[in-house]
Amino acid sequence: MEKAVTGWGIHRYGPQSGIERFDDILISELLVKIVSDGRELGSSWCSPMHLDELAVGFLLTSGKITRADELAGIKVDEENQVVYVDLRTLDPRAEKSAEKKPQDVKIYAQDVLDLMKQLLQSSQLHRDTGGVHTVALGQRNQLLIYREDIGRHNAVDKVLGYCLLHGISIEDKVLVLSGRVSSEIMSKAIRMGVKCLVSRSAVTDEACRMAREQGITLLGFTRGARFNIYSGIDRIIVEEE
Amino acid sequence: MEKAVTGWGIHRYGPQSGIERFDDILISELLVKIVSDGRELGSSWCSPMHLDELAVGFLLTSGKITRADELAGIKVDEENQVVYVDLRTLDPRAEKSAEKKPQDVKIYAQDVLDLMKQLLQSSQLHRDTGGVHTVALGQRNQLLIYREDIGRHNAVDKVLGYCLLHGISIEDKVLVLSGRVSSEIMSKAIRMGVKCLVSRSAVTDEACRMAREQGITLLGFTRGARFNIYSGIDRIIVEEE
Repeated sequence: MEKAVTGWGIHRYGPQSGIERFDDILISELLVKIVSDGRELGSSWCSPMHLDELAVGFLLTSGKITRADELAGIKVDEENQVVYVDLRTLDPRAEKSAEKKPQDVKIYAQDVLDLMKQLLQSSQLHRDTGGVHTVALGQRNQLLIYREDIGRHNAVDKVLGYCLLHGISIEDKVLVLSGRVSSEIMSKAIRMGVKCLVSRSAVTDEACRMAREQGITLLGFTRGARFNIYSGIDRIIVEEE
Repeated sequence: MEKAVTGWGIHRYGPQSGIERFDDILISELLVKIVSDGRELGSSWCSPMHLDELAVGFLLTSGKITRADELAGIKVDEENQVVYVDLRTLDPRAEKSAEKKPQDVKIYAQDVLDLMKQLLQSSQLHRDTGGVHTVALGQRNQLLIYREDIGRHNAVDKVLGYCLLHGISIEDKVLVLSGRVSSEIMSKAIRMGVKCLVSRSAVTDEACRMAREQGITLLGFTRGARFNIYSGIDRIIVEEE
């Protein structure tokens, strides 16, 4: 596996010191291709961790597969920066398992604040390099998984890919993001059945419109003890002290 | 022209106030297509300002044109969110004008700090919405032009498109960015002959590698009175007090 960061000798300018040498850590970036049956389905500059999840998430959020049993195999060729995916159905007799409709997610205001705090504390890479986006899946006030990438979209794909690979339902959980929620991020979330997105940053008008149309709870500018509610206020629960 | 921002009635959660109504301003997002001769060359979710520059910058940085005289016309259809570009050469006899080789850019440390300060002060949109990236072109300690967009790439395209439309040379100036410098941003800069990039944020290892190969000066984490020098230190001038 390529490393998530690369050490570089650089220089630093400061008002007192002038220019001095400095050993820095830069966030790594890698061009990865997703190939199926000899055909390139997509490629992305990304952070070189969890490339299997990235590929699965990409297949899901681009609508190339919708269920785990449409994916027969996956192989990461790290040296050549290719993920090979096999899209022949693993078991053609596989029925969509009798779905237990997941309960709708409830969101306690204090949990939102706790999840964001954990997200920011989790990211060693962000502290080291300042160059990544972090995305996580939360349940009540616990982060179940978090992923980082130089690309906002990639980080979302990795989390959603992880969920498919591990059979984790998304509808009753919360997607927590360090970055902005644009319409493209919202499209991915809608396609995957996410019911609640919590961002540390801004949301665009289009993302807000889509969230309201689809009945998705969208929270932004989650900072310190505060957040904005752009859509889906009915799921938010404020407990009295 | 669509508005850069949209007013929305939202709710806000705070520790004392609980949930209360609030009139917010969200950054607008628009899907714009670039069409030539009936064929779609590209499309992008972007901020709805300066769409002509966005289209020209896209043509430039994607290698579809390299000079102003390859662009015969441009028409923005705001209602349908399409920019029509005419790529027949405007004047087939047009020679590349006798180029005066621009002087190499020199970068005074204090100017770098001044440019970044101006960039951050310029962006009313950023202050209003927290949802845009800002990119500018600077000369010595003056910003000549700045553009904003929800997309980092779009903001770069707009500045470079403006330069082509107005015959402004780029080689002897500084590109100033609020956002991260990834390999894709660096590719655009290299293609356009940018010699110096100054960012407020991180740079990736790949962007750093490309800058060193191409002899481009790359500065990052320009904050307050400090910055990091990732490449091209020979252009930096520190004046003694």
